[in-house]
Amino acid sequence: MLLRTSFRYHVHKIHPAMLPRCGALTLCLPPAPANPFFCTYIMDTLHTQLLHSSPVIARLQALRTAMQERQIAAVIVPSSDPHLSEYLPQRWQGRVWLSGFQGSMGTLIVTENFAGLWADSRYWTQAEAELAGSGIALMKIKSGASLEHIDWLAGKMQAGQTVAVDGHVLGLATARALQSALDAKQVQLQTGVDILNDIWLDRPSLPTPPIYEHLPPHATVSRADKLASLRQRMQELGANWHFISTVDDIGYLFNLRGADVNYNPVFVAHALVGVNGATLFVQDGKVPHELATILAQDGVQLAPYLEAASALAQLGASDRILLDPRRITLGLRQAIGNEVAVVEAINPTTFAKSQKNAREADHVRATMEQDGAALCDFFAWLEQALSAGSPITELTIDEQICAARARRPHFVSPSFGTIAGFNANGALPHYRATEHAHAVIKGDGLLLIDSGGQYLGGTTDITRVMPVGQVSAAQKRDFTLVLKGVIALSSTRFPLGTKSPLLDSIARAPIWAAGVDYGHGTGHGVGYFMNVHEGPQSIAASAMPEAHTAMEVGMISSIEPGIYRPGRWGVRIENLVMNQVAEETEFGPFLQFETLTLCPIDTRCLDLSILRPDELAWLNSYHATVRERLLPHVDGAAKAWLLQRTEALAAV
Amino acid sequence: MLLRTSFRYHVHKIHPAMLPRCGALTLCLPPAPANPFFCTYIMDTLHTQLLHSSPVIARLQALRTAMQERQIAAVIVPSSDPHLSEYLPQRWQGRVWLSGFQGSMGTLIVTENFAGLWADSRYWTQAEAELAGSGIALMKIKSGASLEHIDWLAGKMQAGQTVAVDGHVLGLATARALQSALDAKQVQLQTGVDILNDIWLDRPSLPTPPIYEHLPPHATVSRADKLASLRQRMQELGANWHFISTVDDIGYLFNLRGADVNYNPVFVAHALVGVNGATLFVQDGKVPHELATILAQDGVQLAPYLEAASALAQLGASDRILLDPRRITLGLRQAIGNEVAVVEAINPTTFAKSQKNAREADHVRATMEQDGAALCDFFAWLEQALSAGSPITELTIDEQICAARARRPHFVSPSFGTIAGFNANGALPHYRATEHAHAVIKGDGLLLIDSGGQYLGGTTDITRVMPVGQVSAAQKRDFTLVLKGVIALSSTRFPLGTKSPLLDSIARAPIWAAGVDYGHGTGHGVGYFMNVHEGPQSIAASAMPEAHTAMEVGMISSIEPGIYRPGRWGVRIENLVMNQVAEETEFGPFLQFETLTLCPIDTRCLDLSILRPDELAWLNSYHATVRERLLPHVDGAAKAWLLQRTEALAAV
Repeated sequence: MLLRTSFRYHVHKIHPAMLPRCGALTLCLPPAPANPFFCTYIMDTLHTQLLHSSPVIARLQALRTAMQERQIAAVIVPSSDPHLSEYLPQRWQGRVWLSGFQGSMGTLIVTENFAGLWADSRYWTQAEAELAGSGIALMKIKSGASLEHIDWLAGKMQAGQTVAVDGHVLGLATARALQSALDAKQVQLQTGVDILNDIWLDRPSLPTPPIYEHLPPHATVSRADKLASLRQRMQELGANWHFISTVDDIGYLFNLRGADVNYNPVFVAHALVGVNGATLFVQDGKVPHELATILAQDGVQLAPYLEAASALAQLGASDRILLDPRRITLGLRQAIGNEVAVVEAINPTTFAKSQKNAREADHVRATMEQDGAALCDFFAWLEQALSAGSPITELTIDEQICAARARRPHFVSPSFGTIAGFNANGALPHYRATEHAHAVIKGDGLLLIDSGGQYLGGTTDITRVMPVGQVSAAQKRDFTLVLKGVIALSSTRFPLGTKSPLLDSIARAPIWAAGVDYGHGTGHGVGYFMNVHEGPQSIAASAMPEAHTAMEVGMISSIEPGIYRPGRWGVRIENLVMNQVAEETEFGPFLQFETLTLCPIDTRCLDLSILRPDELAWLNSYHATVRERLLPHVDGAAKAWLLQRTEALAAV
Repeated sequence: MLLRTSFRYHVHKIHPAMLPRCGALTLCLPPAPANPFFCTYIMDTLHTQLLHSSPVIARLQALRTAMQERQIAAVIVPSSDPHLSEYLPQRWQGRVWLSGFQGSMGTLIVTENFAGLWADSRYWTQAEAELAGSGIALMKIKSGASLEHIDWLAGKMQAGQTVAVDGHVLGLATARALQSALDAKQVQLQTGVDILNDIWLDRPSLPTPPIYEHLPPHATVSRADKLASLRQRMQELGANWHFISTVDDIGYLFNLRGADVNYNPVFVAHALVGVNGATLFVQDGKVPHELATILAQDGVQLAPYLEAASALAQLGASDRILLDPRRITLGLRQAIGNEVAVVEAINPTTFAKSQKNAREADHVRATMEQDGAALCDFFAWLEQALSAGSPITELTIDEQICAARARRPHFVSPSFGTIAGFNANGALPHYRATEHAHAVIKGDGLLLIDSGGQYLGGTTDITRVMPVGQVSAAQKRDFTLVLKGVIALSSTRFPLGTKSPLLDSIARAPIWAAGVDYGHGTGHGVGYFMNVHEGPQSIAASAMPEAHTAMEVGMISSIEPGIYRPGRWGVRIENLVMNQVAEETEFGPFLQFETLTLCPIDTRCLDLSILRPDELAWLNSYHATVRERLLPHVDGAAKAWLLQRTEALAAV
C-alpha cells in the first residue's frame, strides 16, 4: 500500500471473517462515518454538508468565544496525536471535528475573523466540497509536510498577541519552526492548553481495547533481551534513561500489541526505560492483570497514561535521557527540566525492529505462503464469479479478499483498507470504494487490487492487476513497463548502507524511458506484525537520503511502481522484499532483495515484445517459486488457478 | 574531473603552448611549491619538513603571542576565502602558511597549548607527513564538510573565553553552527579581526591579473540583457538589491573573465546590483580603462574591492536585498543593518548560467570537436611514441595533452591539472604526478588520463583509459563495467525537474551488480568557459536532492563512474552531457542527455561478453558520431588513429 502520512481508512462493514481469531483480542472499530474520497466525494458532498456544516459553524463560534476568554488571537489545530502516529484515535481527530474536513492531513488555523485549512493537492477537491458553507477557507499548499501556515501566521499576527496550539500533539521539529517564526514577530506561543477541551463536550475518550502479548514462536526475541539490547545502546550513547512515544516502537520493545486504531496492531502508550526497570504509561484497565504480572517479571511497571509528563519532570541533574526529536511532542519534551542532559538520536528500537532476524524472516516466509494461498482462493473465486456473470463490485472484492485471508492461520486483521479500483478508479492511487460510490466489475479493462493482512508472523501488502474481458495494447504496455520497473529494482544489488531513497530511480528508469512517471514513492518499510508503513528506510525520491535511511540486512520494503492514466486505468504491481547479503567483495558487503510476496503476476496483461530476455527469465523464475511454495497450501479451484497463472512463458 | 571541494592544483611547469592566446590576457601563475599527494608524499616528506617545520613552529609561536595580546583563547583558520571559492588565491591560504599542511581542505584550530588540524581520510597520510614535527595534531574526520571541530571546540572552551575566526572567509552556514555551539557554552565568538594580519608579514596581496571581456560570438547574451533578467527575478522576489560574492556568478553576469586563480577563468570581486545600476567591487587597476567605459555604458560602476562591506552598510529600512546564504560570508552578511529586509534565495545567476542556451550549446559542440581533435593528435602521438620505445612518463603526458589543446583555436588554459595515472596511480582518483614522483609508462596495464581545457566557447573535461601492452581479463572486465555505467546513465530519460542526485544510482547499478562500487559522485555540473565544477545540479549520492538540484534544459554535467583497485589499476570513463528535451507526454516534459564529448572509448579494453546488444549498439553509434564530427578536424596520424579507434564492433 502506498505510503500516505496520517492517512486514515475507515472500515464500513466488518465481515465476520475479519473478526480477530487470536486469544482475547477484540478489535475495537469505531462507528463508521461517511468517508468520501476523491471521485466519490461529489456524491457525498450533500451528505457531508448536512452532517457537518451547521455543527462546524457552531463549533467555530464556541472556539472563538473560548479564545476571547483566554485572550488568544489564533488557534492552530494540527492532524496529529501525542504519538505522532499515522492513524489517529478518534480522540485526537479534533481538526476533523472542528472543520468537517475528513482528509487525513490538514492544519486548521482559526483567528477572530478568519478560519483556514492548509491542505495539499491530494485533498483540494475533497476539502472544497467538505468546507463549503463552513466559512473555512481552503489554503492550498505544495506538500503535506510544508510549513507554509507558519509563515502565514507569522505574517498576520501582531507583536504581543498569543497563538495557541496543543503542545501535546505538536512534533518537536514543527514546534521549533513555529517558535522561531513567532519569536521573530514577538508573538507569544501558548502550548500548555488544549483549548478543544473547553468546547468539545462529547470528545471521545482514550481507546479501551485490551493490550495483549505477541508470543513465541512469532515473537522471536524475549522482552528481556530486547530491553537488554536497548540498554546496551543507551549506554553507548551515554544515557541512563530513554523515553519512547511512538506506538510501534513500544509494541516492538515490549512484545505487546493492541487494537487502538484500525489496521496497525498498536496501543496508545508512552514508555520510560531506565537502567534497571521500565515504565509503561497506559490507560487503566488496558493491561489484563496476568499480563501486568508477566511484565513485572521483566522489570516493567505500569503507570497511568497521563503521568508520563510528570515522570519526565522528576528527572534530575545527574540524568541523561535519550530522545528522538522526530518522535516526541513538544509537550513531553518541555516536561524535562533544563538540568537534565538530553541525548538526541533516532529511537534505537526504530532500527532494531526494521532489521528482522532470521527467525522472523522464516515466519514471514510462512506467512507469505498463507497470504499467497489466500489470494489464490480469492482470485480463483473472482475469475469464476466474473465468468459466471455474478454481480461483482469493488466492495465485494474487499469483502472476499478479507474473508479469504481470515480463513488462514494466525490472521489478525487487514493491514490497511483494501484498494480495489476498476479502470478509472484504478488510476486513483489512494482510491477507496464506498457504499455511496463504487464500480461494478464488468466490460473490459484492468482491475487493480492493493490489499494486505496482519498475521502473528508478519504483515503483508501486495498489489496485483488482473484483466477483465479484453485488455488493450496500451494497457498491456503500461502493465509491462511497470513490471520492468519491479524487475529492475528487485534484481539490483547494492552496497550495505546504501541510502534507500537513492534506489527509487532504478525502478523508475524503465518507466521514464517510455515518457511515463508516477507520483508516489517506489517503496516503504514494512513491519513484522506491526505497522504496514515503517521506517527508517524509504525507497522514495521525496525522502532525503540521510544516514538513518541506510539499507541494512533484514529490512522489509515494498517495491511498487505504477502508471496511472487519469479517467482511464491504473497499473501498480507491488511485492515485499527483504534485504539479504548477496556477497562480500573487496568493496565490502553487498545486499540483494529476496522477494517475499508469493502471488502470480497476471501474464495475460503482458506485452512480451518489450520484455528483455533477462526480464522474462526473472518472471518465469518468480512464477516457478510461487508455484512451488504455494502448491502445498491450495486445493481445488485455487490449485488449478495457481497452476494456470504460473505457467512459464516462452520468448516471442 | 572529479569534484573535490576546495581542491587546489598547483602547476609545476608552464609549457609555452599553454600560455594564453586571447588578447591581453596574462595567466598569473604563482611560484610552484612542492605539492606532495597520496603515494608521492613519502618521498616529499623530508623536503616538506625542511621547508616547513621550523617556520611552522615560529609562526604558531607568533600566533600565540598575538592571541595572548588580544585575549583570545582559540583561533580557527579555515580553508576558505571571501568568495567561498573552490580554488583559493594565495592571500587566503593562511591555513597552509600556518600549518605547513598543503592539502586543499582542512581546518586548523590553535589554542594556548594545543594545535590541531581537522582533515578527512583523503588527507590523512599526507597530513601526518606534513605535520610531523610541527606539534600540530591530526584530527581525523569523516568528511570534509563535517563540523566536528566545532563540537570539539565547544567542549574545550570555558564560559567567558573568546574564540576568533576571520568572519570575512567564513560561510554563513558554518558561522551559524559555530555561533550556536559557542552560545550554548557562553563562549564569545570574535569574527571581526583577521589575526593572521598581525603575524603574516609577507602575506601575498590580492591577485593583479587584468579582467577582460568575454565577447560575442562566444558570449551569447549581452551584459545588459543578463542584468535585465536578473532584475526581473529580483522584482519577482521583492528585492531592490542583490549582492553577489561568488566569482563565477559575477563573471557570468557581467561577461567578464579573469585569471586570479589557476584553471577557472575568474577574478576576485563582489557585486551589488540595484534596480537601475550595479557596482563591481574590484581591486584598483584590474579593469582596463576602455573596459571601465564599456561597463559604464551598461550602468556598471567600479568601486574598490574592500568597499563592498561599507556599501552594504549604507542600505536602509526601505531596502530589500536578495542574498544567497550558501554563497556569502558572515562578514559581509553582518555588514547589512538589521533594518534592511533580507530575501534569502539561491543566486538567480547560479540557475541562469547552468542553463546553457542554444547558441552556447552550438559553441560547446564546436569546442568539443576541437577538443576531441586535439585528443586525436595527442593519442596518435602517444601510441606512436610508446611503440617507438620513447621514454614517456605521466608528466610527459600532461605536457603533450596541454600542448595539443593549445594548438586549437580559442584555447585559453587547461581547465584543471591533468590527472595521468598509470596502473596503481590510476587507482588514486585524485592522483597528480609530480617532479618528485611519477611513473614511467612501460610494461603492461591501464593508463588513465583525466584532462580538460578552457576555451572561449566552452569548458571541457574528459577521462579516457588506454591499454599499454597486454591488458588482463580482470582489467577488461572493470573497463566494461564502467562503460556499462556510462551507457546506462547516458541513455536514461527522466522527467524535467528530476533531482539530479537521484540519477547517481542509475550509473552505479551495473557496477554494483558485479560487487563493485566507487567512492565519488557520478557527475558534476560544468560551466561555459567558466568553472569546471559548478552547480546547482550534482549527480552525486552524497548531495541532498533538494529543490535547487533539479535538472533543467541546457545544463551540462559530467558522467564519470569508475572502478579503483588500490595498488593495481583504476578505470574511469568520463563524458560531458547536456540536458535536452526528449519528448513531452501527458506526464510532462522528459529530458535526455546529449553526449557532448567526442573522443573514442578504447575498444581494446572491452570484454564484449558482458556487453548487452543494446549497449554495444550505443557504443557503435557513439563511435560513428565521433568519427563523423572529428574527421574534418584531423589529419595524418591523428586521422588514421581516429579511423582505427572508431571502428564499429560486431557482437561476439
